[in-house]
Amino acid sequence: MSENGALPLRGKVLTVDTMNANVKKVDYAVRGPIVQRAVQIEKELKEGVKKPFEEVIKANIGDAHAMGQRPITFFRQVMALCTYPQLLDDNKFPEDAKNRARRILQSCGGNSIGAYTTSQGIDCVRHDVANYIQRRDGGIPSDPDNIYLTTGASDGIVTILKLLTAGEGRTRTGVMISIPQYPLYSASIAELGAVQINYYLNEEKCWSLDISELQRSLHAAREHCNPRVLCIINPGNPTGEPIRSFPYKKNSNDIYKGCEFHSFKKVLFEMGPEYSSKVELASFHSTSKCYMGECGFRGGYMEVINMDPEVKAQLTKLVSVRLCPPAPGQALMDLVVNSPQPGEPSYQTFMKERTAVLSALAEKAKLTEEILNTVPGISCNPVQGAMYSFPRITLPERAINEAKAKGQAPDMFYCMKLLEETGICLVPGSGFGQREGTYHFRMTILPPTDKLKIMLNKLKEFHQKFTQQYS
Amino acid sequence: MSENGALPLRGKVLTVDTMNANVKKVDYAVRGPIVQRAVQIEKELKEGVKKPFEEVIKANIGDAHAMGQRPITFFRQVMALCTYPQLLDDNKFPEDAKNRARRILQSCGGNSIGAYTTSQGIDCVRHDVANYIQRRDGGIPSDPDNIYLTTGASDGIVTILKLLTAGEGRTRTGVMISIPQYPLYSASIAELGAVQINYYLNEEKCWSLDISELQRSLHAAREHCNPRVLCIINPGNPTGEPIRSFPYKKNSNDIYKGCEFHSFKKVLFEMGPEYSSKVELASFHSTSKCYMGECGFRGGYMEVINMDPEVKAQLTKLVSVRLCPPAPGQALMDLVVNSPQPGEPSYQTFMKERTAVLSALAEKAKLTEEILNTVPGISCNPVQGAMYSFPRITLPERAINEAKAKGQAPDMFYCMKLLEETGICLVPGSGFGQREGTYHFRMTILPPTDKLKIMLNKLKEFHQKFTQQYS
Repeated sequence: MSENGALPLRGKVLTVDTMNANVKKVDYAVRGPIVQRAVQIEKELKEGVKKPFEEVIKANIGDAHAMGQRPITFFRQVMALCTYPQLLDDNKFPEDAKNRARRILQSCGGNSIGAYTTSQGIDCVRHDVANYIQRRDGGIPSDPDNIYLTTGASDGIVTILKLLTAGEGRTRTGVMISIPQYPLYSASIAELGAVQINYYLNEEKCWSLDISELQRSLHAAREHCNPRVLCIINPGNPTGEPIRSFPYKKNSNDIYKGCEFHSFKKVLFEMGPEYSSKVELASFHSTSKCYMGECGFRGGYMEVINMDPEVKAQLTKLVSVRLCPPAPGQALMDLVVNSPQPGEPSYQTFMKERTAVLSALAEKAKLTEEILNTVPGISCNPVQGAMYSFPRITLPERAINEAKAKGQAPDMFYCMKLLEETGICLVPGSGFGQREGTYHFRMTILPPTDKLKIMLNKLKEFHQKFTQQYS
Repeated sequence: MSENGALPLRGKVLTVDTMNANVKKVDYAVRGPIVQRAVQIEKELKEGVKKPFEEVIKANIGDAHAMGQRPITFFRQVMALCTYPQLLDDNKFPEDAKNRARRILQSCGGNSIGAYTTSQGIDCVRHDVANYIQRRDGGIPSDPDNIYLTTGASDGIVTILKLLTAGEGRTRTGVMISIPQYPLYSASIAELGAVQINYYLNEEKCWSLDISELQRSLHAAREHCNPRVLCIINPGNPTGEPIRSFPYKKNSNDIYKGCEFHSFKKVLFEMGPEYSSKVELASFHSTSKCYMGECGFRGGYMEVINMDPEVKAQLTKLVSVRLCPPAPGQALMDLVVNSPQPGEPSYQTFMKERTAVLSALAEKAKLTEEILNTVPGISCNPVQGAMYSFPRITLPERAINEAKAKGQAPDMFYCMKLLEETGICLVPGSGFGQREGTYHFRMTILPPTDKLKIMLNKLKEFHQKFTQQYS
C-alpha cells in the first residue's frame, strides 16, 4: 500500500525473490514435472494429437480408484446414509450399515456431518480407533485421548514435525528419514526449515533397515544439527517392503526378531516398561491405502504415545486452528477400524470384496517382480508390503552423460523418454532419494492385471530399446 | 536415540521448552478455555451433576447444523449420489441432482470421489467456481487456472500467508489485520513467525473501515517490519458487518462509494487497468457459512489475481505436498457455485429452503440487536452481514479488578461466569482483539429462534445481576 491510501502501483509485492525461501526448497516428485507432462499429454491426446500410444497409464501415484479399483460397498453405503439420512428409511440398505450411520450421526453436532467436529475428531471414531489399535497389538492399551483424527496421514505427519522443529544452526532439529523416502518427508522438512538426515535402506537385503546405518547416519548428523526425530515408513514407500525385523539391543546383546508385521508400539511394550513408558512415538494411518484406497476422502488418524502433557495441550491447540478434519473422512476412518463383523448382514460381501482386492494386489506384485526380473538391466526386489515397487535400473554411460548435459537426473531422463514413447507415467528414483550412482523408478502395481501386463511388457521393450540406443 | 542403537531412555525429546516456539505463541479463542470448559460442563450434566441450567447453548462458533439448521436437500442428494453411485438408478432422486453427480464423477479419477483429485482441485469444479465469480462481478473475467480448491477457507488463507512470510527482524513480513479479527489470522501469523499489524475498525460507525486508521497502522508498522499484506474479512467476523464503502483515492480526490456488497475484485476493475492488472489479490470462500452451513465438509476455494507466474508455480507445488483437498468438500463447493436453476426439478425446493434459512437469520439478527440494546450496559451494532454479533459490554470497576487479580481478561471473567451460571457459551472479545479498555463478546445468532430468545433473555438477566453484584 502507498501512503496516500491508494492501492500499490509499484512492482509485485510477492515474487520468487521475496517469497518464503523455505517453500522454494520444497520438492515433490510424486506430482512433479513427469506428472505435469503426463497431464499435458492426456490433453494432447484428447485434442487428437497422434502419439505412439492411445492412453497415459499413471503408475506414479498410489491412487487405487483412479486405476479402476471399486470402492468397498459397505463403506459407501454408510457414507451415503450419513450424507443423506433420509436413506435410513430405505430398505435397500442393510441394517448394519444403518446402525453404523446412526451411531456416527449421533456423535455429530445436530446429527449432521455438516457440523464442525471437535478439533481432535469425533469422539466415537477416536474410541473405535483406540479399540482397533488395542486389538491389533494384542491388548496393549490404547487411549482415545491419544488419538487425533487427521486430514489424511500427511496432515498428521506435518503437524508432529512442526511441533518438533526448533533451534538455529547446529541446534536446529534434525529429522532422520529413510532413503529412498516418500517425498512428503523431505518436502515438509524443507518447508519447516528443519534438517534432513538420510539413512539408507539396504537394497541388497530387500530394502531392510540396518542398525549400523542408523548409527552412522546419527553420528554424522550430530556434527551439524540436533537429531530429534526418526521417521520410519512401514510398509515402505517407495520400496513397498514391510519392516521385517526391528533391531534393538537390550542391556545384553540379543537382537529382537519380529514376525511379519511389526507394530512399533507393540515392540516398545515388549521391550519392557523402561521403554514403553518413556519412548515418544507418533504413528499414522489413513483411509487412502490398503484394500480401501479411499484417497479422496482424506481420512486419517495418529496415535501419540508418551507425549509430554503440556506438549499435548499445545498439539490440541494447534489442530484447533484448522477447526476440524473433514467429517466424511472421519466417518470413513471409523468404518475402516470398525468393519463388518461375522454375523452382521454385510460381513460376507465385505470380506469377499476385501479379499478380492488383496489377492489381486498379491497377484500383481508377483507379476511385477517376475516380468521385470526377466529384463537385463532391471532388478526388482519382491513386493510384499505395499502397492509400490522400486526396481533398480542400469543405465548406459552415454544415457547418463546425455541426461547430465541436459541438467536432468539420469532416471528423470529415462522416465521422461518412457512417458513420451509409451505413455507410461512413473516417478524417477531421484525423487525419493537413492544411493549415489544407482538409478530406480517407483511404479505402483495398481493398474488392472491385464493393463499391468501390457504395461510391464511395454516397459521391458522400452528398456531394451533404450539400452541398445545408448550403448 | 542413544549411540548403541537402543531407543532413548533419557528425558522427553519433546517438551514445551524444546518445542517449536512459534506454536506456543498461537492462540485460538474460538476453541479456547471457555469452549473446553463448556465441553466439560456438558459431560458433567450427562453424569447427573446438578447445574442451574439443563443444557449448554453453544453460541461460540458459526456451526449452523450443530444449532439445528437442516442441510439443503439438493446438496445432500448430489453428495449421496456421488458417494454411492448405485443410487443413480433410484428414481427417488431428481434428474438435476443425478446430472450434477454424473458430471462431478466424470471429472474424478476412475469416476470415484475416492480417487485423489489434482492438487489444485477438480477441473470442472474450478470452471464452475470461475463462472460463478464472473457472474457475481458482472462479467469481469475469472480464469479457472487462478482458482485453487481448499480444505475450508482457513487452509487457503494459511497457504497464502505462508508464501508471503519472509525476512528477519525489521524486514520481517507484516500482516495487517482488522481488530476485532477472526483468530485464524493472529494464530497463523504467530505460527509462521510473521508480524501482526493491527488496524482498528470503527465501532461507532458500525465497525466500518477508516482509511485514516489504515494509514496510521501502516505508518506505525513500517518502523519495525515490512508490511506486505492487508487482510480484510467481508462480511466481518466477529463483527458481522459487511464492508459498506471501500475508500480509495483515484488520481483526483473522489472517493468511491459502493453498494451493499463489495466484491474487492470488482472494485479493483472499476479503478481501471492500472489497478486491475497490477494489484495482487487473493480471495477466499467456503461451504461453511451462508445459507448452506456445511462446515464439516471443509470445502473452499481461493482465487488469486495478478500473482507472479513463478510464484503461482510455487503455490501449485506447495499445495501438491498435501496431495488434494477432500473430494467431497470439492463436490459440495461445486453445488454452492452451481445451484439449481429455474426450470430444473429441484429449483423450487432449493429456493424455499435457502430463503427460509436466510429469513430466519435476518429475523434472528434483528431479535439479537433489539433485545440486547434494551440492556443497560450492553450496546449492539446492527447485524447485517454475517451470523455473528459483537456487542460491547460495560463492566463495573470491581469486576475488572477481580478479573485482573485472577490474571484473566475482564471479558473472559464475564463469559466464564456466564457459562457457569447459565450454560451460555460465548467467546470473550479479548479473543478477537478490541480497543484497550473496551469489552465485548462474540455471539452467533444461529440457535433456533425460540432458543435464541431464551438465551438473549437469560443473558439480559445475567448482565443485570452481574452489574449489580460488582457495583
